[in-house]
Amino acid sequence: MSEPIAFLGNLDAEEEADFLAALSAALPEETIRPFRRLSAAERAGIRIAIVANPDPAEVALLPNLAWIQSLWAGVERLVRDLGQNGVPIVRLIDPELARTMAEAVLAWTYYLQRDMPAYRRQQEAGTWRQLAYRPPSEVTVGLLGLGALGSAAAERLTGAGFRVAAWSRSPKEVPPGVTGFSGSEGLADLLAASDIAVCLLPLTGETRGLLDAGRLAGMKPGAALINFGRGPIVATDALIAALDAGQLSHAVLDVFEVEPLPPESPLWRHPGVTVLPHISGPTTPASAAAVVAGNLRAYRASGRIPAAVDVIRGY
Amino acid sequence: MSEPIAFLGNLDAEEEADFLAALSAALPEETIRPFRRLSAAERAGIRIAIVANPDPAEVALLPNLAWIQSLWAGVERLVRDLGQNGVPIVRLIDPELARTMAEAVLAWTYYLQRDMPAYRRQQEAGTWRQLAYRPPSEVTVGLLGLGALGSAAAERLTGAGFRVAAWSRSPKEVPPGVTGFSGSEGLADLLAASDIAVCLLPLTGETRGLLDAGRLAGMKPGAALINFGRGPIVATDALIAALDAGQLSHAVLDVFEVEPLPPESPLWRHPGVTVLPHISGPTTPASAAAVVAGNLRAYRASGRIPAAVDVIRGY
Ligand SMILES: NC(=O)c1ccc[n+]([C@@H]2O[C@H](COP(=O)([O-])OP(=O)(O)OC[C@H]3O[C@@H](n4cnc5c(N)ncnc54)[C@H](OP(=O)(O)O)[C@@H]3O)[C@@H](O)[C@H]2O)c1
Ligand SMILES: NC(=O)c1ccc[n+]([C@@H]2O[C@H](COP(=O)([O-])OP(=O)(O)OC[C@H]3O[C@@H](n4cnc5c(N)ncnc54)[C@H](OP(=O)(O)O)[C@@H]3O)[C@@H](O)[C@H]2O)c1
Repeated sequence: MSEPIAFLGNLDAEEEADFLAALSAALPEETIRPFRRLSAAERAGIRIAIVANPDPAEVALLPNLAWIQSLWAGVERLVRDLGQNGVPIVRLIDPELARTMAEAVLAWTYYLQRDMPAYRRQQEAGTWRQLAYRPPSEVTVGLLGLGALGSAAAERLTGAGFRVAAWSRSPKEVPPGVTGFSGSEGLADLLAASDIAVCLLPLTGETRGLLDAGRLAGMKPGAALINFGRGPIVATDALIAALDAGQLSHAVLDVFEVEPLPPESPLWRHPGVTVLPHISGPTTPASAAAVVAGNLRAYRASGRIPAAVDVIRGY
Repeated sequence: MSEPIAFLGNLDAEEEADFLAALSAALPEETIRPFRRLSAAERAGIRIAIVANPDPAEVALLPNLAWIQSLWAGVERLVRDLGQNGVPIVRLIDPELARTMAEAVLAWTYYLQRDMPAYRRQQEAGTWRQLAYRPPSEVTVGLLGLGALGSAAAERLTGAGFRVAAWSRSPKEVPPGVTGFSGSEGLADLLAASDIAVCLLPLTGETRGLLDAGRLAGMKPGAALINFGRGPIVATDALIAALDAGQLSHAVLDVFEVEPLPPESPLWRHPGVTVLPHISGPTTPASAAAVVAGNLRAYRASGRIPAAVDVIRGY
């Protein structure tokens, strides 16, 4: 029998119960215990923690952790709170998340390409007018980030006939049909060429505030922005100014500096903004638990910790 | 030199000029003349007319027509106005139309599956709430009509992972991954099983008023309807009643009994209705002209009239 695994999450009771049930079902051979159920003596024996927005003070009470498995794909908060502890952090790389996120990218790309916001405004005004149709072969979608999610999105978009460009930190082999960019100049080129820019970047020291007034001014006039990465990557005030000036035609935002988006945010009522409550890439407890189970079993079998986040790089 | 071809259309000047330019470019070897430019003597020599909403009185002034090429895919008006003349009517079967329509079916299917109308209402109310995500593998899309457009849509939808069912007049070989239905009972079964029903039927004596109160009551509770076929296939009053009763969750309508949709129509302001100005399947003059050119050249070479509409069947 292995030592128990600790579960630390700041979830509502129902969500926690769902995750615990899915994890226990996926890992019948393991004992998974919520942190609050562990005695001080038991805490000392914990080697692995599965976490979802954990309280860093609780993590600090597990002195013998070998590694931490996150239930989320984005780990900027874990890196900030726990990165200096030196305990490896393993993020969730869930193929089902990549699928749902790629689907969301295609769905909201169609939303913009097929002019759904404009037709919505026309309906509100009682206006019957056919807008010029742009085939995907004439629409360039620029992906910021070409990791697990960006690559899956690129494949969906090229499959649907869009022109796809993608920007990553390191120059890299890009999927067929995709034009690759990297570096600061590469970002300028990608933004100038994109009719629709889609942010799928992690939040790091380098990406925070990346899309500021200057970058937005360098976008193709009339272009649209989709942010499915993290809120603080886009400067909200600059975005609103770019929309008001007509430099950008529309923004679809699923992530925000503060979530839930506060009632007083002007984004709620801006006609050029579609607000989504962080739903672009949903994971189910079942699919996340299956990925975690794979990581845990590989570790039990080999003693090797799964590939961990680079806390200096930030993702 | 062949005899000239007559062009008869009730289009605005710019649209007519666009179509004439595209047709002349695609058929440099032919002379295409607007009806109003033909003398009485010339009219007698006309064998072929290319038409877009023609005035039947003008068509009647062409006594020696061998066949009529429509620039539209839907021909219910031509069949009604000209069907009894006995002149074969050839409709437009444009692969680019099938592509744009299949794209529209997928785009507005995502619109419904990813709950865009509900998130829009939540944004208007300032509500941050994540709705349950339904993967395409758990969403059945029922296609009414499996012709040129329905088949292209079925392929797109199965490719995106949706469960697809399709209903046609005659029992037929269905594409892989699609469940086929036909007949009146088949329609009842398809409607009861579909989370999203998509109408891609032609308007005929049999399909007029097909989706009436009874049929709508037989739909899966909470299902949505997309009508990209023809307006009179759906009974508007019954649809509004089904939406108001919560039997249907949403309707996306691109076609209407009267177009443009009159300002007094309650559809404009219904929260459960998305009104589109007949834009789901746009054709460009260039792609339509290429198809017409293919038909005309085949006819000049063989003397055989392209496959024509069955005026009794109505499509
Ligand atoms: N909205 C939602 O529901 C939701 C759901 C899940 C995830 N997310 C967000 O999506 C993010 C991406 O997820 P992922 O799984 O695709 O991450 P990933 O596999 O780590 O990929 C990250 C990508 O961003 C690039 N990148 C990072 N820093 C960069 C920089 N400074 N300049 C240029 N490119 C940079 C990386 O470049 P290299 O390839 O050169 O390393 C890589 O291509 C997550 O971090 C999370 O914040 C959002
Ligand atoms: N909204 C737009 O922008 C737009 C653009 C273009 C076309 N349209 C509309 O779309 C319609 C369909 O176009 P298409 O090219 O796909 O036509 P099509 O190739 O003739 O196919 C029509 C389909 O409807 C089925 N059908 C006809 N009558 C039926 C009945 N009484 N019961 C059951 N099924 C029946 C046919 O069944 P069988 O296979 O058994 O013959 C066939 O599968 C056009 O007629 C037009 O009205 C709309």
